[in-house]
Amino acid sequence: MELDPDSVDSMYRTLSTAVVPRPIAWVSSTDGETDNLAPYSFFNVVGIDPPVVMFAPASMKDTPRNAVETGEFVVNVVTPDLAESMNASSATLSSDASEFDHAGVERAPSVAVDAPRVAASPISFECVLYDTVEVGTSTMVLGEVVYAHVDDELLTDGKLDVEKFDALGRLAGSQYTYTRERFGLERPD
Amino acid sequence: MELDPDSVDSMYRTLSTAVVPRPIAWVSSTDGETDNLAPYSFFNVVGIDPPVVMFAPASMKDTPRNAVETGEFVVNVVTPDLAESMNASSATLSSDASEFDHAGVERAPSVAVDAPRVAASPISFECVLYDTVEVGTSTMVLGEVVYAHVDDELLTDGKLDVEKFDALGRLAGSQYTYTRERFGLERPD
Repeated sequence: MELDPDSVDSMYRTLSTAVVPRPIAWVSSTDGETDNLAPYSFFNVVGIDPPVVMFAPASMKDTPRNAVETGEFVVNVVTPDLAESMNASSATLSSDASEFDHAGVERAPSVAVDAPRVAASPISFECVLYDTVEVGTSTMVLGEVVYAHVDDELLTDGKLDVEKFDALGRLAGSQYTYTRERFGLERPD
Repeated sequence: MELDPDSVDSMYRTLSTAVVPRPIAWVSSTDGETDNLAPYSFFNVVGIDPPVVMFAPASMKDTPRNAVETGEFVVNVVTPDLAESMNASSATLSSDASEFDHAGVERAPSVAVDAPRVAASPISFECVLYDTVEVGTSTMVLGEVVYAHVDDELLTDGKLDVEKFDALGRLAGSQYTYTRERFGLERPD
């Protein structure tokens, strides 16, 4: 099959099905009154020095608006035990309603930013706004990581251990994948 | 554990271990003489209308340089049967050596761009350069998808079917994950 990019719906469906598995940024933010929380899978690391992450919302709802207006947000990682509450936080609520409360997610205070983090998430990255980039009707929101929380149980010799950590991956439609079925490849010289 | 972002090595290790599973862009390009091929996992969809993908190399090696200089590249998806050749294509070669030839990867012609695609990859997205964005020492390379190839065997009723498709996911270090261990979550209203 050959796809014509002028069919936007069709190309979006194909891209979101083919570009998998995607990591999930469970982004917490605040406008000072209401704490917002929402998952985004058009997300990744985009810079190393300084350390920068990016998420690309298709519309400027509460979370990206808070990130831009306050210059702060937190990326919480999603482990399998958090799947249901992550999904519940994707509900469409009014702007003055908190997805933390709606989804029954406990807050924990952050260190470097005002936005709370997710208490039950084993890894959280506190970010300050680094840049925004318009991409057609979407916007990339870039955040520089200024502080990281990592649960001690995930460490080996003081470093985050991939073997102890199973993050949820996003597939197409309503599908998610575990990351427990693994293998290693030795990188060539 | 609390991490200080001023330790760049430590933060990079933590980010690349925590932001998983990552999709893999197996990017093919050409400078007109040599066809290059390399995998990138700081990669995702970043725009819907127009359809735009992004990969973020940490240094401007052959692939991103070709993409910027020719304004064209192809993103090929990596299924488990392609793992070994994808890994082999990440070898560091001289600029006049092709990773296609080094890794024994067969080329197929593209339709809208000069860069070849990977014949054995079941999905390829032909891209034209949309933008580049500097992020500290890294560069985001954005490409607008102008043509998509999808293997007919992956279709159901003319649409790419997530159930027929197992893409490889990137984890930390030398680890990869299959995406066969799945579950569904019904999205809330």
